[in-house]
Amino acid sequence: MFDTVQPDTDADLGGCMHAFVSELYPICRSITGDGVRRTLRRIANEVPLTITEIPTGTEVFDWTVPREWNVRDAYVKDASGARIIDFFAHNLHLVNYSARYSGKLPLVELRRHLHSLPDRPEWIPYRTTYYREDWGFCLPHRQLESLPDGEYEVCIDASLEDGALTYGECLVPGKSKDEVLVSCHICHPSMCNDNLSGIATAVFLAGHLVRSQPRFSYRFLFIPGTIGSIAWLSRNRDRVGSIRHGLVLTCVGDDAPFTYKRTRREDAEIDRAFAHVLKHCDPPGKLEPFSPYGYDERQFCSPGFNLPVGCLMRSVHGRFPEYHTSADNLDFVRPDKLAATVQICLRAFDILENNTRYWNLKPFCEPQLGRRGLYSSSGGAAPGADTMAMLWVLNLSDGNSTLLDIANRAGLPFAVIADAARRLQAKHLLRDAIVSPYSDPEEVRVSEPQRKIVP
Amino acid sequence: MFDTVQPDTDADLGGCMHAFVSELYPICRSITGDGVRRTLRRIANEVPLTITEIPTGTEVFDWTVPREWNVRDAYVKDASGARIIDFFAHNLHLVNYSARYSGKLPLVELRRHLHSLPDRPEWIPYRTTYYREDWGFCLPHRQLESLPDGEYEVCIDASLEDGALTYGECLVPGKSKDEVLVSCHICHPSMCNDNLSGIATAVFLAGHLVRSQPRFSYRFLFIPGTIGSIAWLSRNRDRVGSIRHGLVLTCVGDDAPFTYKRTRREDAEIDRAFAHVLKHCDPPGKLEPFSPYGYDERQFCSPGFNLPVGCLMRSVHGRFPEYHTSADNLDFVRPDKLAATVQICLRAFDILENNTRYWNLKPFCEPQLGRRGLYSSSGGAAPGADTMAMLWVLNLSDGNSTLLDIANRAGLPFAVIADAARRLQAKHLLRDAIVSPYSDPEEVRVSEPQRKIVP
Amino acid sequence: MFDTVQPDTDADLGGCMHAFVSELYPICRSITGDGVRRTLRRIANEVPLTITEIPTGTEVFDWTVPREWNVRDAYVKDASGARIIDFFAHNLHLVNYSARYSGKLPLVELRRHLHSLPDRPEWIPYRTTYYREDWGFCLPHRQLESLPDGEYEVCIDASLEDGALTYGECLVPGKSKDEVLVSCHICHPSMCNDNLSGIATAVFLAGHLVRSQPRFSYRFLFIPGTIGSIAWLSRNRDRVGSIRHGLVLTCVGDDAPFTYKRTRREDAEIDRAFAHVLKHCDPPGKLEPFSPYGYDERQFCSPGFNLPVGCLMRSVHGRFPEYHTSADNLDFVRPDKLAATVQICLRAFDILENNTRYWNLKPFCEPQLGRRGLYSSSGGAAPGADTMAMLWVLNLSDGNSTLLDIANRAGLPFAVIADAARRLQAKHLLRDAIVSPYSDPEEVRVSEPQRKIVP
Repeated sequence: MFDTVQPDTDADLGGCMHAFVSELYPICRSITGDGVRRTLRRIANEVPLTITEIPTGTEVFDWTVPREWNVRDAYVKDASGARIIDFFAHNLHLVNYSARYSGKLPLVELRRHLHSLPDRPEWIPYRTTYYREDWGFCLPHRQLESLPDGEYEVCIDASLEDGALTYGECLVPGKSKDEVLVSCHICHPSMCNDNLSGIATAVFLAGHLVRSQPRFSYRFLFIPGTIGSIAWLSRNRDRVGSIRHGLVLTCVGDDAPFTYKRTRREDAEIDRAFAHVLKHCDPPGKLEPFSPYGYDERQFCSPGFNLPVGCLMRSVHGRFPEYHTSADNLDFVRPDKLAATVQICLRAFDILENNTRYWNLKPFCEPQLGRRGLYSSSGGAAPGADTMAMLWVLNLSDGNSTLLDIANRAGLPFAVIADAARRLQAKHLLRDAIVSPYSDPEEVRVSEPQRKIVP
Repeated sequence: MFDTVQPDTDADLGGCMHAFVSELYPICRSITGDGVRRTLRRIANEVPLTITEIPTGTEVFDWTVPREWNVRDAYVKDASGARIIDFFAHNLHLVNYSARYSGKLPLVELRRHLHSLPDRPEWIPYRTTYYREDWGFCLPHRQLESLPDGEYEVCIDASLEDGALTYGECLVPGKSKDEVLVSCHICHPSMCNDNLSGIATAVFLAGHLVRSQPRFSYRFLFIPGTIGSIAWLSRNRDRVGSIRHGLVLTCVGDDAPFTYKRTRREDAEIDRAFAHVLKHCDPPGKLEPFSPYGYDERQFCSPGFNLPVGCLMRSVHGRFPEYHTSADNLDFVRPDKLAATVQICLRAFDILENNTRYWNLKPFCEPQLGRRGLYSSSGGAAPGADTMAMLWVLNLSDGNSTLLDIANRAGLPFAVIADAARRLQAKHLLRDAIVSPYSDPEEVRVSEPQRKIVP
Repeated sequence: MFDTVQPDTDADLGGCMHAFVSELYPICRSITGDGVRRTLRRIANEVPLTITEIPTGTEVFDWTVPREWNVRDAYVKDASGARIIDFFAHNLHLVNYSARYSGKLPLVELRRHLHSLPDRPEWIPYRTTYYREDWGFCLPHRQLESLPDGEYEVCIDASLEDGALTYGECLVPGKSKDEVLVSCHICHPSMCNDNLSGIATAVFLAGHLVRSQPRFSYRFLFIPGTIGSIAWLSRNRDRVGSIRHGLVLTCVGDDAPFTYKRTRREDAEIDRAFAHVLKHCDPPGKLEPFSPYGYDERQFCSPGFNLPVGCLMRSVHGRFPEYHTSADNLDFVRPDKLAATVQICLRAFDILENNTRYWNLKPFCEPQLGRRGLYSSSGGAAPGADTMAMLWVLNLSDGNSTLLDIANRAGLPFAVIADAARRLQAKHLLRDAIVSPYSDPEEVRVSEPQRKIVP
């Protein structure tokens, strides 16, 4: 276990992630069914996974778990008997959740069941009909336009029957029972950015964190969108109080800069952590305010829960042409971008893990850094970022400011500030802000140094 | 009563308002006198009006009600006996509150009593001498420059005698005794934007509200500027606590975009209501901070009262060339602009009336809108404003946010948010935020739907 | 005493200040030694000065008072015996705190002890070696490049021995024991902007304040940088609670616009005072956020003290080419700029002295200014700044807003607002906000008018 998720370099990481995406790409997933189960089994090869099945008909808050959908075959044949639209050529050809159907139709009737994108005539669109029983096929507009009149044979050998909704859960235990929730959806058929990129990021994050002995426990959810998060929340309503921070991952493999959508609270610590890392990455990422539309943050941030769950993206769903089409393919997601997504998440998690408040143990005037070997600048030259970081940490470590507060006020990356804190702590100039040292400023009780989780 | 104020369309409304302005235009108003009384009688034909007379000499806070001023005739005749300046040709010719005078003067002495605008040689300026006994005439600079030397005969047949200060008050009763105060001044002679436009807006608002059965009671004041509001406040000092929101109307008929001047509190609910409606109107209006200069908001916002009274304008007094001149005439105010002023006020009042907080009765995850016929978008297409409005209302209806808060966070017009709330309430998904439903989220106690006052 | 500090005009003031800088310029100062003592004696000719000597070896917080440094002679002679580098030609030639040394060296070895500025080949740099025993010379790069090979004779007749650290303190007593701290460093040899400009400003401010009978007591510190402020704070740790406002002066004589660096608190009253005066000066000054680097504000703003001490500059240390070079000379600081620095400080101090809250004694509506001779505008003309200032003071004097709050909201200079308050107070319309007059608004208890300290 975890073998593939221990790459040595970022290039390796990106390669492993893209290979993982490639394995999952052909599977026909939906909000239920065997495609989801196959996907979860593949994930379970990489990380410890608990799989849950919730029977059709189960009430989950205002919703009901739907019938399970599975497809054996689906095609349209022309008059010559040739499969002109074939589920096995691309699973986007079949409208997701199409009901069983077979029959012969003239073109004019068939067309009422065909979907295409006139503006993108080479691409197959992605369509669903989860909650209204229907059937249909999707195809390139170019092909649709060229269909000759005549009779067509339609076959959809699919089942829509009582079964279950399936999801997976991976818990990476930390020192604390407080949790960071990471959620991605697993209900999309052959598309890569939406959302195999999120699945791959979650899997490789989990693999990294298992080896990092983090402070928080990290809970990864691999769930069907909407109904999956509603089902999970319904079964875990009394446990969500331990979720301290949360993140939905979606569309994180293409080459757009990062966009982070804030939690409903707008200033949760995870919002501040991502605001910081996206400001200090290259190119800088963008922040979006919360809105009650999007992915499963809609459910996590519903007012009865109001969990501090944000959403990390690169291209934003619905705003890039490849979204929900066959062009969201293996070329659209890039190994280096997948690897960078893992890194940016780890940098944000590093803030959550280490965002401590300290007491300066020499709070009256500056301590003499020079005689402790900490002051490298000489002769009146301006100090470098490392020295400035120490001066900032000393100046603001009065038990009130966290290291992230200090990093933001200093305009320096969190990692530089956290390193300065480690150096000062090693010289007994800082300690964790549990009790005030100011009543006895000379007292030195040294706390355990921080641990980085960023590789 | 109210006959003229029930136009069927905006075009009708604008026409009725302009006709009303035209009727009042010729009257010579001042801070006291029969011109004010005639104006109030005409208003009383449209709305129920209580008229108050306060005797000369009455002390009102730091001020004293002045003597009453009335004019029978006023002119300047040249050597030939021709009336070259005639009060009956335009009442701006006479300096307002000029004392009785008659005599013959050479041009050089007369000129010390003549006022003109060298930069606007065709226009007659508006001048007053309320608190210093004096007399004078105003005329176009072009005419002033052409006066030949010689002796002139001056006659001002005016009285400045003990009498009264007169004002009118129209109360539109609502369900609540809490009041919205709407004030306009009635002391300007023949000028239209300043302030017949305000009088017309107040009258037609009152007419509309009488038919709307509003929640608030609306009190309309038709008062002389400064001394009138001081007198009213002096007589109503113990009653102003019921004023929840207030608005001064001035210069609201020309074709400039709206400008709203904030209350002294800067963030009163009426400030937020007008900020919202001016942001969502076309062209967007501007906001100005409070300043202790302007119209009667100066008195309502004096520190002893500090009432939440803002001021709606189009062109801002003192900043347009026609201000306080004969060019502020019937052509300067436009029917469509007068009608739009009534509409923007009603839109702001609609916010004040309906700015409720709600509880989402299905606060855990999203309720399934589709099976209630509320979710029109299909197939992964982005939802429209109506659907987004419902998602926002559901997400933020936790008893804390008002509908205006929600509208602002959603970036949608209040009316769209309020409509969404009505639809959700009709489906038992919302209720007024009186007690928390979260202890028993399944409880449904439906409250009365909102009522729109915007036509 | 104070003879030279009573110039009659700004031109005189600038001239006196520049003459004072010129007298101090030749002295070789350091963090200890007789140069500091000579400087303090000269200052003591102008203002009452208490001089403190702290023995070498005294522990001051985390630091130790160093050995005292004095120089009798220092030079480098070439093979012909000519003094090619001579301490008496310019004291910047000797690295400050160089240890005693004499010997003959070939050029290649000598060069390891020579410092120059390749980018500024005509200027001598300023270098120190306070806390590492070493020696060296500084010279123009042009001269360094032209040194012929051969043997050179080096002599540094300097002592580094137990002695003392010396600083001076001038207290201008006010009506209150609450203090304004003004600090400048006195440890730089022949440089003018850094920091003879600060010394001169402090001296002439003290001279002015002695004659002004201020409300606050003003404590002026003339101290060596870093170790001096640490030593002072160490000896006065229990007294700093009386410091209400504080200011470090550095680089305030060149012709750049002002830059004010905020205190660690960022919104201390002195921050607001300087933000105001720099906004209203010409050209407007700039504000910088606090940072834990710079001059002695680093120590005053260390977290154990967190004193409200800002820093006034013109060019910012380290960001102008002449900084820490021989080009920071008598031409670089200008009489008019030195005088303007005194004036801007007095304007800020005037705010600190007079930033009172008032009660409007006629809070219900506006008082009638006209009959008190306070309302100059007539005939509907827009009021001037003086009238607007009175309207603002009346409107906002509800016991909550200070005059500075009012000035900022009005967009008017503090002096104009304070003058308006004086006029209103003289007419019994205002009184100091000690108890609320609103319960009995007619009560008039007049307080003492304010006193301006700006000349």
